[in-house]
Amino acid sequence: MRRSIFACVLGAALLGLLPATGSARTLDVWIAAVPVTWDVVPNGRDAIGGTTFTKDQTVFRTVVYRAYTRNWGRPLPNLAHLVADNDGIPGPLIHAEVGDQIRVHFKNLDTEFKRPHSMHFHGVTYAPGSDGAFIPGFSGPGANVKPGHAFTYRLFAGPQSAGVWPYHDHSPSMHESIEGGLFGMLSIRGKGEQRPDREFVVALASIHGFETINGRAFLGNTPIMRAKVGQTVQWDVMTLGDEFHTFHVHGHRWVNADGTPEDTRTVGPAESFRVRWVEDAPGTWLYHCHVEGHMAMGMIGLYRVSRR
Amino acid sequence: MRRSIFACVLGAALLGLLPATGSARTLDVWIAAVPVTWDVVPNGRDAIGGTTFTKDQTVFRTVVYRAYTRNWGRPLPNLAHLVADNDGIPGPLIHAEVGDQIRVHFKNLDTEFKRPHSMHFHGVTYAPGSDGAFIPGFSGPGANVKPGHAFTYRLFAGPQSAGVWPYHDHSPSMHESIEGGLFGMLSIRGKGEQRPDREFVVALASIHGFETINGRAFLGNTPIMRAKVGQTVQWDVMTLGDEFHTFHVHGHRWVNADGTPEDTRTVGPAESFRVRWVEDAPGTWLYHCHVEGHMAMGMIGLYRVSRR
Amino acid sequence: MRRSIFACVLGAALLGLLPATGSARTLDVWIAAVPVTWDVVPNGRDAIGGTTFTKDQTVFRTVVYRAYTRNWGRPLPNLAHLVADNDGIPGPLIHAEVGDQIRVHFKNLDTEFKRPHSMHFHGVTYAPGSDGAFIPGFSGPGANVKPGHAFTYRLFAGPQSAGVWPYHDHSPSMHESIEGGLFGMLSIRGKGEQRPDREFVVALASIHGFETINGRAFLGNTPIMRAKVGQTVQWDVMTLGDEFHTFHVHGHRWVNADGTPEDTRTVGPAESFRVRWVEDAPGTWLYHCHVEGHMAMGMIGLYRVSRR
Repeated sequence: MRRSIFACVLGAALLGLLPATGSARTLDVWIAAVPVTWDVVPNGRDAIGGTTFTKDQTVFRTVVYRAYTRNWGRPLPNLAHLVADNDGIPGPLIHAEVGDQIRVHFKNLDTEFKRPHSMHFHGVTYAPGSDGAFIPGFSGPGANVKPGHAFTYRLFAGPQSAGVWPYHDHSPSMHESIEGGLFGMLSIRGKGEQRPDREFVVALASIHGFETINGRAFLGNTPIMRAKVGQTVQWDVMTLGDEFHTFHVHGHRWVNADGTPEDTRTVGPAESFRVRWVEDAPGTWLYHCHVEGHMAMGMIGLYRVSRR
Repeated sequence: MRRSIFACVLGAALLGLLPATGSARTLDVWIAAVPVTWDVVPNGRDAIGGTTFTKDQTVFRTVVYRAYTRNWGRPLPNLAHLVADNDGIPGPLIHAEVGDQIRVHFKNLDTEFKRPHSMHFHGVTYAPGSDGAFIPGFSGPGANVKPGHAFTYRLFAGPQSAGVWPYHDHSPSMHESIEGGLFGMLSIRGKGEQRPDREFVVALASIHGFETINGRAFLGNTPIMRAKVGQTVQWDVMTLGDEFHTFHVHGHRWVNADGTPEDTRTVGPAESFRVRWVEDAPGTWLYHCHVEGHMAMGMIGLYRVSRR
Repeated sequence: MRRSIFACVLGAALLGLLPATGSARTLDVWIAAVPVTWDVVPNGRDAIGGTTFTKDQTVFRTVVYRAYTRNWGRPLPNLAHLVADNDGIPGPLIHAEVGDQIRVHFKNLDTEFKRPHSMHFHGVTYAPGSDGAFIPGFSGPGANVKPGHAFTYRLFAGPQSAGVWPYHDHSPSMHESIEGGLFGMLSIRGKGEQRPDREFVVALASIHGFETINGRAFLGNTPIMRAKVGQTVQWDVMTLGDEFHTFHVHGHRWVNADGTPEDTRTVGPAESFRVRWVEDAPGTWLYHCHVEGHMAMGMIGLYRVSRR
């Protein structure tokens, strides 16, 4: 069975549209690297610290991953009200289940900076040709896709692929690209594993001098995550770049895979994890990186839990 | 049943005074933010590197948490010979057991810097009003306690609260406060869990340009932890601020919750963990952060184990 | 039963020479600290970024650990084609099994810088005299071995010693030494645990301004790890110094001790871990630190898997 990215990127709110289980599915996903104008601080201010910023401090041109309808019909709409949106940073959340084949059709539409790009996927299985990482003398076309060119990555979600994983540019322009936000996440359910009611993508990264969550800095700009008491919520956390972060949610705890309760966890470059709980704490809470300097430079957001 | 902070802060040496178990207890704790003079290097020297420091390099005014007797009778004495002391950095160790209600009566006595302060507790359960974190437009009086004002935080140690956890200022002056040492720890035993014979608080933080353990830098200033062969020892480790550390104890190992032996563990901002073992290695040992630059700037102490 | 270091350092390729199991063995190992000329970038270039370096940027004099035959007969040869070589950075891989006694005969041959040196071993059990860590007023001769002098460290691989561990200088010249590469690893099998077919040492460290794997920077200089489909491979990862890294291998995943699959893991100063898998992915892959700046400064290597 094949499905288009259309269903994949609609995010948690529409997950009910997807079949509950599947076997030997092949998912087809269309994702391009496209130049966009990005504003790290759309409202121009740090609501806690009081600092204001001008647009020349916060707006810049960059290249992001954007999902398209089947066969590059048209870019999917920006679903800014959803967590797993198509706004650009991070790129579209790719949902799959253990056992799925995934074909990612990639096109480099970077006609502005004219840099090569690629996609390298963590957590999944693939042949070297789909690795997407530039190795002088060894790697093939999928590791160095020139502007105007395309490549299809063939991935498999094996038994050890359950979890959440980063994907990112690993071409010769990797370092500039990652600083500019050219990354996204895979969310792979275990075989038969229940979907959460709410799934929140939290991509922590230093971008344009700010400390961002999903490419935005400071309360009022970073995503507002929303859930209701009784819902199962899942947080998909990762970071890329040079920095280590500690992910913290107020008023909540979760239990580690080893049985240890925690409410703060270290995440280093290209690490990723998901945590789940059944929501029972109504209120307006903070989630943030607990590195003081990162929090002060914007890596903080709101989590709003309403009563049932 | 209610108990005052008096018993709570006396630390490991006097833990025998506490009832062995309890059910549906409510603990009352009185803690104020108070200005103090703090000396990071009381003996003025780095015993390993040989550098000496003048008092204008090591002494400064700051605000710390200090425990009081019931109803603000008087500040509890500084028990500098104990690990869980009331010297100021870190603030008093709050002991509880899963199932306990904890009421923390907080007063901001910062008449010197005249900054707002608060207490935010990790690991425990509470309503949003007791979160203690400043959120413009949402948070209440407990997140922004002005000098001369008071607030009572109502906490619950639930099943996932077993372990050790940081508490710290999360008011608008959070960043300056944490750099100045306005933090402490909770130590929550599982239901019916045995107390260790010795409990060592290790709060790692960069303070006043030094790398400190419990607010002190270099051998001769940092706490000397003491135990006897046959005793169960517990180390409560946490850090706050901008830095990541690796906690190491010489001549000893412990087993992770996942069964892996280790003698060094990463701890990032607001992370915390406890490790336990039955002491069997007499001698004078080092414990330290294994980040070379931190060790060189003072984050190192002595652990002395005597024969039974 | 006693064996010399000769067998110990020959590395994974020759492990078949070693007896499969042993009980109450005593291993004798001869290791000296010796001055050497070290070239961080032997081929003078960053194959990915294209930068070239002159020898005055990459070559320096330093002190490393080198293995000798029994009773200091002669230095063991540099087995540069093996992973566990005797080239100097890291020092010789010391293999043992839980239950083994290990005697490390150490000699300080640093006649050039004339600094004291020592060996401090993680993961194993020993009396304070074999700790090798300088503590003013407490430590003995093994913590401060002067040039021309020798010391024997007596270690025991107890039940909690299974795994891989760093060893390093912990004398008064520790900080300069570690920056210069005076460190190595222990690899201790559990009692009766099967040896892997291939064992790869990955010591991550900042050396001479480069980000190195086993003292080398950039593809073409860093070790090329090799395996065949069907072989059990083990990666022994550690770091020393000031930095945190994230170890990543392309095209592969492993399962944590807590059951979580991962392909990237944080390792902080003096932390260490081993991961194993049965090889099933032929190709030429990258392994690297995923901290962008470290990768760009050389912390990246090749892993080549051939068909059976």
